[in-house]
Amino acid sequence: MEIQRVIKDIVKKTDTKIVLLVIDGLGGIPHPVTGKTELEAAITLNLDKLVNQYACGMIIPISYGITPGSGPAHLALFGYDPFKYEIGRGVLEALGLGVELTDQDLACRGNFATLDYENNTVVDRRAGRISTEKNKEICAVIQNEVCEIEDVKVKIIPGKEHRLVVIFHGEGLSDKVTENDPQREGIPPNIIQPLEKEAEKTASIVNKFLDKVKKILHPPANYILLRGFAKCPKIPLMSEIYKLTPAAIATYPMYRGLAALVGMRVLPVPGETIEDEISVLKSNFGNYDFFYLHVKKSDSYGEDGNFERKVEILNEVDKFIPEILSLKPDVFIITGDHSTPSVMKSHSWHPLPIIICAKYAEKANVHVKKFSERECMNGALGIFHAINVMPLALSYAGKLDKFGA
Amino acid sequence: MEIQRVIKDIVKKTDTKIVLLVIDGLGGIPHPVTGKTELEAAITLNLDKLVNQYACGMIIPISYGITPGSGPAHLALFGYDPFKYEIGRGVLEALGLGVELTDQDLACRGNFATLDYENNTVVDRRAGRISTEKNKEICAVIQNEVCEIEDVKVKIIPGKEHRLVVIFHGEGLSDKVTENDPQREGIPPNIIQPLEKEAEKTASIVNKFLDKVKKILHPPANYILLRGFAKCPKIPLMSEIYKLTPAAIATYPMYRGLAALVGMRVLPVPGETIEDEISVLKSNFGNYDFFYLHVKKSDSYGEDGNFERKVEILNEVDKFIPEILSLKPDVFIITGDHSTPSVMKSHSWHPLPIIICAKYAEKANVHVKKFSERECMNGALGIFHAINVMPLALSYAGKLDKFGA
Repeated sequence: MEIQRVIKDIVKKTDTKIVLLVIDGLGGIPHPVTGKTELEAAITLNLDKLVNQYACGMIIPISYGITPGSGPAHLALFGYDPFKYEIGRGVLEALGLGVELTDQDLACRGNFATLDYENNTVVDRRAGRISTEKNKEICAVIQNEVCEIEDVKVKIIPGKEHRLVVIFHGEGLSDKVTENDPQREGIPPNIIQPLEKEAEKTASIVNKFLDKVKKILHPPANYILLRGFAKCPKIPLMSEIYKLTPAAIATYPMYRGLAALVGMRVLPVPGETIEDEISVLKSNFGNYDFFYLHVKKSDSYGEDGNFERKVEILNEVDKFIPEILSLKPDVFIITGDHSTPSVMKSHSWHPLPIIICAKYAEKANVHVKKFSERECMNGALGIFHAINVMPLALSYAGKLDKFGA
Repeated sequence: MEIQRVIKDIVKKTDTKIVLLVIDGLGGIPHPVTGKTELEAAITLNLDKLVNQYACGMIIPISYGITPGSGPAHLALFGYDPFKYEIGRGVLEALGLGVELTDQDLACRGNFATLDYENNTVVDRRAGRISTEKNKEICAVIQNEVCEIEDVKVKIIPGKEHRLVVIFHGEGLSDKVTENDPQREGIPPNIIQPLEKEAEKTASIVNKFLDKVKKILHPPANYILLRGFAKCPKIPLMSEIYKLTPAAIATYPMYRGLAALVGMRVLPVPGETIEDEISVLKSNFGNYDFFYLHVKKSDSYGEDGNFERKVEILNEVDKFIPEILSLKPDVFIITGDHSTPSVMKSHSWHPLPIIICAKYAEKANVHVKKFSERECMNGALGIFHAINVMPLALSYAGKLDKFGA
């Protein structure tokens, strides 16, 4: 990617520190009754003070009209082109279950299913939605019996109900294989086929794995349907591109996994609250020069359509702002990965606010008084794509030399 | 183009309907006497009402400082990269004369010219600007005598004065040939030469055509100079990329042709007025899910430098807005393809206003009161490239799934 290549050439290691606070699903749209967005309804005196002092604006997560999943939205925030580095479904699912992946891992999603062996047809693609407990039991059985196929290690990770993730670990694995999930019932499962010459080994290994599974399992969960084969994209590390020593503070596995993917040290957090996260930030502040600090619940309540609880999370985040400021980060950026308007109960494509608190990041517009969608729109930074956040962060942190002479 | 590839993966067919009203040459710049642009001078109460309710902004047709022709400007509005899909001059000219083209057609522009046969020099590149009537007569004669060269069909379409379009229709034709127009008088016309091996057949056919023409015609119009050889670019259809069933309502041939190129059903319009177009929209509203509605005259008067008449067209468009709204399109977008400031008497590169009326497309700024260049600049959508209009339209219409997980 062009801009990362440029950055890599002009970036330098300095003592300055950057804190990137990502309030998941931050942006909203007006509530039909009150006409206020979640941020407009929230009491955010500390954030409002920052807006009155520093540069703010709006970010477009990926591109106009594109509603991002958390994966691409975070990649863009970390400065990676989300169209170039696509994270496959299997990988994301594995990250979400807390699995650490290397470039020798091939991940895929699985369903336990019911197969009619006599007629070789899929009778139930979800094996009657077996319980999560039952799932764990079966996964343990498989893991016990099938931990290796030839030179490839197999790892079985139970998910919820009938869902699981299978990781194949070894040399020369490829995600260019077809799926065995026929996507409907009453027909046979597919044979896994290689989509290119280099994927022949993978197809053979996965088919052998499925044959073994068949011999171990019993109805209703007597088969596994696999889909979303994916390898970790080869992502250059933040330490290489940005000369940073980055750390991640997040409680949800998927975000911890994403951070690990781009080379952040993922710090253990002793609990689930924002307070827990802040305490980790404080105690590690001396050891890193970039902190990705993630608040999840604003997105969760947005997805639930719970406007009031999302507002409460925003209020809560606001209370911790002075504690972060007291650490005196050289650059403190507050934004989100995408909008999750409560009235839509889903992620959306709407731009969302950003503040950059730093030396030389002055406020530009007297009309901007509150940290909200409608006021930040008029900020000094304008409306811009999230992929530009990292270059701005590095620049405000004094980490970028001049480009050209 | 990257974004169309992404859209194609995440778009779905829904019942929602999009109306894209393109007011040709919409944007303007202030009149030196009044200091008002055409939109600022116009009485547009209905559009102003929409601006007070929905998201507005400004679009840059192609790129900063680039004044577009109608072809690329429309392609961008339809979501196609105008730098990738270049429509050659011959094709645009043919579309402008109402010719429908397939990928077996090679189109070029022609001039009737006067050739001094004895010295083989072009004496008059425009054959004394013969009348349009005379042009039609001569074209009929040629068409009658030369309708086929080997396996290639030839179609002659008269234009204005000395201008015409020639279409060669057949297998294996190429636009990689030189022109015979020497671009100045007193020298011989060029022989058409192939620029690549695959164009040898074309060059031979066109030279044979010119030889035949020579034998039929008489001074002053005794020869044809050809230039702008072009084949239709292979453009993916809107139905494929967007899963839309699109229709075009336009009265001018070129816009109808452009719409056909991207796969819109071009609806017959019984007259030339905006009212005629609206009646077609109404009677077909149930049958399609995307309508491109084109108003031409705003551009024509802009090109003429007729400020007042352009304002009148804008006033007239405004009167029809309630009729379109009464159809309850899920997404109603009002914009133009480019600016045609009357004071410049030409297309220009200036950004121009856009409104998106849709659920979740709220007004973002109390300061925006009128549908004009200077007010829409402060709208929720900001200033963005026209190529993003379609992704936004699809998104507001609920037709796009999340990108990534």
